[in-house]
Amino acid sequence: MKIVSYKTKGNEFSPYRIGFVLDDKVFDLQAVYKQMLLAKDEEDSAHAALGLLPDNPNDFFALGKLSLNRAEEAYAYALENESLTSFNRRDIVLGPPVPNPSKIICIGTNYKDHVLEMKSEIPDFPVLFSKFNNALIGPEDAIEKSPKTSKLDYEVEFAVVIGKKASGVKRDEALDYVAGYTIGNDISARDLQKRTPQWLQGKSLDRSTPIGPWIVTTKEIPDPSTIDVKASVNGEVRQNSNTKHLIFDVPFLIEFISELITLEPGDIILTGTPGGVAAGMESPQFLEEGDVVTLEIAGIGTLENKVIAKK
Amino acid sequence: MKIVSYKTKGNEFSPYRIGFVLDDKVFDLQAVYKQMLLAKDEEDSAHAALGLLPDNPNDFFALGKLSLNRAEEAYAYALENESLTSFNRRDIVLGPPVPNPSKIICIGTNYKDHVLEMKSEIPDFPVLFSKFNNALIGPEDAIEKSPKTSKLDYEVEFAVVIGKKASGVKRDEALDYVAGYTIGNDISARDLQKRTPQWLQGKSLDRSTPIGPWIVTTKEIPDPSTIDVKASVNGEVRQNSNTKHLIFDVPFLIEFISELITLEPGDIILTGTPGGVAAGMESPQFLEEGDVVTLEIAGIGTLENKVIAKK
Repeated sequence: MKIVSYKTKGNEFSPYRIGFVLDDKVFDLQAVYKQMLLAKDEEDSAHAALGLLPDNPNDFFALGKLSLNRAEEAYAYALENESLTSFNRRDIVLGPPVPNPSKIICIGTNYKDHVLEMKSEIPDFPVLFSKFNNALIGPEDAIEKSPKTSKLDYEVEFAVVIGKKASGVKRDEALDYVAGYTIGNDISARDLQKRTPQWLQGKSLDRSTPIGPWIVTTKEIPDPSTIDVKASVNGEVRQNSNTKHLIFDVPFLIEFISELITLEPGDIILTGTPGGVAAGMESPQFLEEGDVVTLEIAGIGTLENKVIAKK
Repeated sequence: MKIVSYKTKGNEFSPYRIGFVLDDKVFDLQAVYKQMLLAKDEEDSAHAALGLLPDNPNDFFALGKLSLNRAEEAYAYALENESLTSFNRRDIVLGPPVPNPSKIICIGTNYKDHVLEMKSEIPDFPVLFSKFNNALIGPEDAIEKSPKTSKLDYEVEFAVVIGKKASGVKRDEALDYVAGYTIGNDISARDLQKRTPQWLQGKSLDRSTPIGPWIVTTKEIPDPSTIDVKASVNGEVRQNSNTKHLIFDVPFLIEFISELITLEPGDIILTGTPGGVAAGMESPQFLEEGDVVTLEIAGIGTLENKVIAKK
C-alpha cells in the first residue's frame, strides 16, 4: 500500500488527511475503512471509525501498528471493491507523507563512496544529526533556495518511517518496528553546513527537504537490504547506488538509535546518501533556481522537485 | 508571571495543563481567565474561554502572543483577587514548561571559558545542534543515566522560549518574539557526543534533559543580557557565570537562527554553557547515580534534579 497525506484542491487551508494511492486514484483511508465495516454489518464499529482509524496524520501515526493493520484491511477491501468513492489524482495535492514527525534523524557518511568524495572518514559508529519539521516539504512542493546559501546540494536517501514505539530494539526484530519506506532528499547548504563543526544550520533550511511521494508499507517491501537508489538533476544521472552499500544497514540503525533515543511512530530516519553529490565534484554543480531534482527508489517511485528562490 | 505545565497528583495519566505559580500556590490559567471574564460580565467570552486561552501546553503556545497576553491579564486579575481557587504546591506535579516543543535548538561553545576548557575554538558563527523531545524531563523528574555512557556531564543554560512565529527577525526587535525564559540542563554524554563528528547522539538520551521549573515571562525579565547563571553538584559550585559573557547574545541568536529556520511559539533555545563542566576538569567528576545537580538562574529560580540509573 502507498500511504499519502493529501488535501483536495481548493481546500488547501484544511488539514491533511491520510489516504492511499491506487493507480491514478486517491482513496481516503478512514472513509474506506468505514465503508468496509458497514459492508460487514459492523455498524457499531463503523460509528467508531473516527477513533479506530484517525483521518489526520498525527493521530494516525500515533496509533502505530493499530492504524497500520486497519489501513491494510481497508486497502485489501478497496482492491476487491472497485466502486468505492475516490478522488482523481489530478484533484488532489499530496503533502509530506508524515507532515509533522516527532523526529527526523539523519545518518551522515553512510556510503563509502560518499565518505571518500567528502574527504571524510569511515565512521566507527553511525553519525547522527537532525533536521526540524520547518524543512519538510511534500512531493509537489518546490525546494526553496535561501539567499543565505550559494552551495545548495541534493542527496537521495532511502527513508525509514517508524511504525511502532521502539526502545532497546534488537536488529533481528528491528523491521517489525517499521511502518514503511519513502524517499528523502536531504538537501544540504554546504557553505552553512561546514562553517561550524555542527551541520544542523546547513541541513534544516525552511522548506528545503522533500519527502515522499508516499510511504510504501513493509508488506510490499519486506526487505530493505538491496534497493536501487538514484538521483538526477535536469535529467542527468548524478547518484546511482543500492542500499546494499550502506555501511550501517536499516536493522542496525534501528538497534543503534533505539538504544539511545526512543523512536516514536511517524519518526523518519534518512539513512544516508551515496556518492555523486555536487560537493564531491571537481567543479561542483550546485543547485540553482529552475533546476529539477529527480530521485528514484526501486519499489517506491519517483520524487521530483523543482528549485525556486526562497519566497 | 511564572508559567508552568502541571498535573494534580493522582492524575498522572491526564494531559498537562497550563498554569502559573504564585508563592506556594498553583493556579489554572484557563480557570482564572474564565472567572475574570465572568466577573467582568462577559458571559459570551467566558463560554469561549476554552478556545481563547487553551488549557493544554501545545495549543497554548501555538496561539503565541494571543495566549501570552490573555495569560498576563488573568495573572493581573489573580494578583488582585486572592480568593480564587488554586492548588497547593504540594498537591501538584510540574512538567517541563513546554512538554512538546517543535524544536529544541542548542548553541555550542558560546562562552569563552567553556570553549577553552573543551579545547575548542571561538566560533565565527553560532554553532547550532539539537535535542529531541524524548530527552526532556520536568523539574521534579530524575535525570536518567543510560548504561551506554560513563561520562555524563551537566551544563547550566539560560533558555529562551519563543512566543511568536519568527522568520527573518532583526536583532533590534528580537525580544518581541520571546515568551520568556527558563533554565535548561543540557546534559551531555561526552563519550557518545565525541565518538562521531556530530554531537546529537550524546545530547538527546531519553529523559536526560531537565528544563524548568517555569517560564518567567518577559514582563519580569525585559533584558536577558546580564543574568547570573550557576550550577552545583551535591552542593559544590561548578559553574558560575553571567549571560553578559555569551559570545552570541540572545537577540543575535534569534536573528541568526530565524534567517535560516522559522521559529515557532514554544520552541526552546538553549543558549550555551559557561566553563566548569566535568569534561573540562583535570580529573573529570562526571555524574553518577545519586548525584544532585542544582542550577540557579537569577530572576528565574532553581532547577534541581537527582541522577538515577536509566529505568
